[in-house]
Amino acid sequence: MGDRDLCIGVIGGLGPEAAVDFFAKLVKATPAASDQEHLRILIDNNPKVPNRNDAIAGRGPSPAPQLAEAARGLARAGADFVVMACNTAHAFEREIRAACPIPFVSMIEETADEVARRFSGAGSIGVLAAAGCIDARLYHRAFETRGLACLTPEGDRRAAFMDLIYRIKGGDTGPAIRSGMAAIGEALIADGAGAIVAGCTEVPLVLAPDALPCPLLDATEVLARRAVAYARGEIPLPTEARPAA
Amino acid sequence: MGDRDLCIGVIGGLGPEAAVDFFAKLVKATPAASDQEHLRILIDNNPKVPNRNDAIAGRGPSPAPQLAEAARGLARAGADFVVMACNTAHAFEREIRAACPIPFVSMIEETADEVARRFSGAGSIGVLAAAGCIDARLYHRAFETRGLACLTPEGDRRAAFMDLIYRIKGGDTGPAIRSGMAAIGEALIADGAGAIVAGCTEVPLVLAPDALPCPLLDATEVLARRAVAYARGEIPLPTEARPAA
Repeated sequence: MGDRDLCIGVIGGLGPEAAVDFFAKLVKATPAASDQEHLRILIDNNPKVPNRNDAIAGRGPSPAPQLAEAARGLARAGADFVVMACNTAHAFEREIRAACPIPFVSMIEETADEVARRFSGAGSIGVLAAAGCIDARLYHRAFETRGLACLTPEGDRRAAFMDLIYRIKGGDTGPAIRSGMAAIGEALIADGAGAIVAGCTEVPLVLAPDALPCPLLDATEVLARRAVAYARGEIPLPTEARPAA
Repeated sequence: MGDRDLCIGVIGGLGPEAAVDFFAKLVKATPAASDQEHLRILIDNNPKVPNRNDAIAGRGPSPAPQLAEAARGLARAGADFVVMACNTAHAFEREIRAACPIPFVSMIEETADEVARRFSGAGSIGVLAAAGCIDARLYHRAFETRGLACLTPEGDRRAAFMDLIYRIKGGDTGPAIRSGMAAIGEALIADGAGAIVAGCTEVPLVLAPDALPCPLLDATEVLARRAVAYARGEIPLPTEARPAA
């Protein structure tokens, strides 16, 4: 089976620590007793891509052309399908899919599917997501089609969340950041969330799986596990991830 | 300065956990307050490449064609120079350089330079290296040109080292592996080593910087720091790393 494994293309750098985390989770999710049983993974870690949140808020240039070019480059280099280690950047998924000759597997869709499988009876689902991800309604729409209610940080909490995210991107993953992130998760639980999704790839860098008094689902890990299963042929690539004919 | 940063190409997957470790060390070595100040890094994590130690021992096919193709692919994808997150695979450096239109920065040379800078008065230098790396005399030759004496695990210790390496590649980084690796380092110290080089990219996965009663230099970290300095234009790429005219 090893020789027929698919090659995973990763759009990374959004930010780079999150790409390291995703790469580590891909490797960890791969059952392998030797190097050769592991998967080929191509990573374009391009942190120079314009800020996604600023673009969605209309305050900066769109990262879509560079994200689309990254996907094309990964396809040229031999990737069989592409994933992106950033939730918010999925606001530009249409442009990426349009430019990319290979399937694009969505972190948002995979995570929403996993939430529907595991937490459909849990009431509202809190999503620790960045401002751009919330404004683009990425999780709201994915949850709505699955009959799930979505709670996200709003107002002061959203501002506090973004402040934490930029501190993490600046290299601070210390105790104050960790407790600050946990507090925002706990506020969503107080508002009625029965489970929390780490819906921003910086969140798992500061929030351990057991950091909250309810289930915490890490979108980075969900995508890693699913990408490995697709690459190993354990599950077929989703139809909508195939390129348009 | 950020827009003139060079793009680092990484030949990885030898093994994949070591590539994750190298990627993490590249990101950590980059002074950056935002995503955009980080470096573009292209990674070809191809663990399907044939076993390097078996090839050097004449027991298996050469990985050189695939390593050379990885370097060419990284150049095509936009890398400005190439590094390889595996000491032993540097036995195939000549074939990689011959095939690659961009500079190749050697982990062995960079580490030997760092040893010469920091430990020239330390007497013999122990190198925790794999069988293929030792048989190919990679560190022996690099140290010899710098007037440094090289000690490596031999006989039963070399067999024990290789057993640990394959266990690490199989996913075991537990206490027994950690103490086993420390014991081999301590044996080199008992033989007269004044400093130890973690000269196999699996070693830092199980040996913390303070695990031995003498300085421990991690070749993975040396290469990461130097690659970042080259990419940021802080130091010029070494002459011998430039492609042949």
